[in-house]
Amino acid sequence: MKKYFLHGKLQAKAGKGEQLAEILLQAAALLSDAPGCQIYLIGMDPDDPDAVWVTEVWDTKKDHDDSLRVDGVRALIGQAMPILDGPPTKGQELEILGGQGIG
Amino acid sequence: MKKYFLHGKLQAKAGKGEQLAEILLQAAALLSDAPGCQIYLIGMDPDDPDAVWVTEVWDTKKDHDDSLRVDGVRALIGQAMPILDGPPTKGQELEILGGQGIG
Repeated sequence: MKKYFLHGKLQAKAGKGEQLAEILLQAAALLSDAPGCQIYLIGMDPDDPDAVWVTEVWDTKKDHDDSLRVDGVRALIGQAMPILDGPPTKGQELEILGGQGIG
Repeated sequence: MKKYFLHGKLQAKAGKGEQLAEILLQAAALLSDAPGCQIYLIGMDPDDPDAVWVTEVWDTKKDHDDSLRVDGVRALIGQAMPILDGPPTKGQELEILGGQGIG
């Protein structure tokens, strides 16, 4: 069955990239046992220290959408918003056929 | 330790997307136990059936570069080239700080 993939950038205000990444790493830890969570990676752009990338794979899009209601995630989103340089842009969505690293 | 992330698109000639994806799924299987291979996913763009995306995470960039010499990978690359619609574009490289789904 195809899985849901989302890959998107969160742009932090100047100098806030590391702080944003820390918040997102906490979210990754919270979501690690959320239903359907296969992959939730936090990555940095070597050319832009304030650009933080989140790459996710979920069994379904619904699993992803439901994850936004996991206890503590909303609080983390609340911590992240003030240090974002503008609203998050919509990420790239793909259908994962298979490969290495997912159940 | 930060891991190496590469996310890129291979554009197939019209109508060859599925065939290309099949070849890349074989590559994923070959590479699943290559040294340092954490993630190797094959994804399709729901808006373009001939666009195949490969999302990889390796312990190091060297592990990724070495993987191109794994037995059978060159043969698969040889199968893929004729059905590509132009040379592969350079993928997006990130440094993975952590998250769910990697060792």
